Amino acid sequence: MTDVNGLSIAILGGTGDQGKGLARRFALAGHTVLIGSRSAERAQEAAGSIGSGARGGANADVAAEADVVIVAVPYEGHKALLESLRAELAGKIVVDCVNPLGFDKQGAYALPVEEGSAAQQAAAVLTESRVVAAFHHVSAVLLMDPAVEKVDLDVLVLGDDREATDTVQALAELIPGVRGVYGGRLRNAHQVEALTANLISINRRYKAHAGLRVTDV
Amino acid sequence: MTDVNGLSIAILGGTGDQGKGLARRFALAGHTVLIGSRSAERAQEAAGSIGSGARGGANADVAAEADVVIVAVPYEGHKALLESLRAELAGKIVVDCVNPLGFDKQGAYALPVEEGSAAQQAAAVLTESRVVAAFHHVSAVLLMDPAVEKVDLDVLVLGDDREATDTVQALAELIPGVRGVYGGRLRNAHQVEALTANLISINRRYKAHAGLRVTDV
Repeated sequence: MTDVNGLSIAILGGTGDQGKGLARRFALAGHTVLIGSRSAERAQEAAGSIGSGARGGANADVAAEADVVIVAVPYEGHKALLESLRAELAGKIVVDCVNPLGFDKQGAYALPVEEGSAAQQAAAVLTESRVVAAFHHVSAVLLMDPAVEKVDLDVLVLGDDREATDTVQALAELIPGVRGVYGGRLRNAHQVEALTANLISINRRYKAHAGLRVTDV
Repeated sequence: MTDVNGLSIAILGGTGDQGKGLARRFALAGHTVLIGSRSAERAQEAAGSIGSGARGGANADVAAEADVVIVAVPYEGHKALLESLRAELAGKIVVDCVNPLGFDKQGAYALPVEEGSAAQQAAAVLTESRVVAAFHHVSAVLLMDPAVEKVDLDVLVLGDDREATDTVQALAELIPGVRGVYGGRLRNAHQVEALTANLISINRRYKAHAGLRVTDV
């Protein structure tokens, strides 16, 4: 397993549920966690609510400071944000965990993405970064719940840069209970992002916080 | 759990690996299994190799006879075959388990499908049938292996007809070790089909026969 000891982690959109949940778990694991938001003030509030030494700041500032940057913003603002951070993210591992979903009366469904997936969109914008897709299926509720010691989930990690996917698999395993499992190349990210719609359907039918485990691995 | 006792099951494309593996497990569970193929003779050979009372015949004949019809043909011939069987499949539960995938040097990838997914294509063609999507991720190797007593897999079952998805969940559970888990509406079938490409990548990386389990359900 790749050694990720000492890596600092920024989370763009870290004031949202998914981002805040990840920030909390990485901070608990002892990592320097920088929560990013359009508003530095709201980022600092979110960091304060997490504790464990997490700090907050404007997206550009935390992106420039951190070793690894997780993108957990709503899909609507995804492309524009990344376009504005090309310089700050150059040379870094950027972990996209955005799920492009729409919602209507029948529940969630996958939105079409011109580049194929949010992760491929990130790679198209961030040509100087090492884009990895991961953390799509984490339950924010479970990540935030102090009573949940172990999260019963395999995080599928996708990308075309082996060293980068190995690093992100190791980051995933900072969350107790979680395994990081290589899930394929970036061109196969769409279905992993879109599968979140199915998990939402499962959650509704079974009153669950469903996750996935990969068998025989 | 819905009672599926006594239901006869036809498998179109039952001479292929996935179809034959499913046929074998349903026959072992005591169901009447009818293997379909373009060639009745090849279907009969496949049925003979499975044993447990499985019979073989031309696709149209087994489709007409069975209570439930599983579609396990290659994607290339999928639409044309279903168009030719509209009458035979009318009123029946039709279980589509086709994965529209392409392959190149980098492995498997999802093919675009005009209707959104193979299952939605089936529903568009078979307007008088009750189309359900399921069995995409079963490993033919594990289904065929006499040494594999239990298959460690949740079968995601998708569809818009609750009674039909309940029936197919129960059929999935005829395979020892398997759970049938409702996975959402048919409009969310694409990503379940496409995820087979990721499982192929996982199999290659980990030398595994990977499947999925849904946690907290």
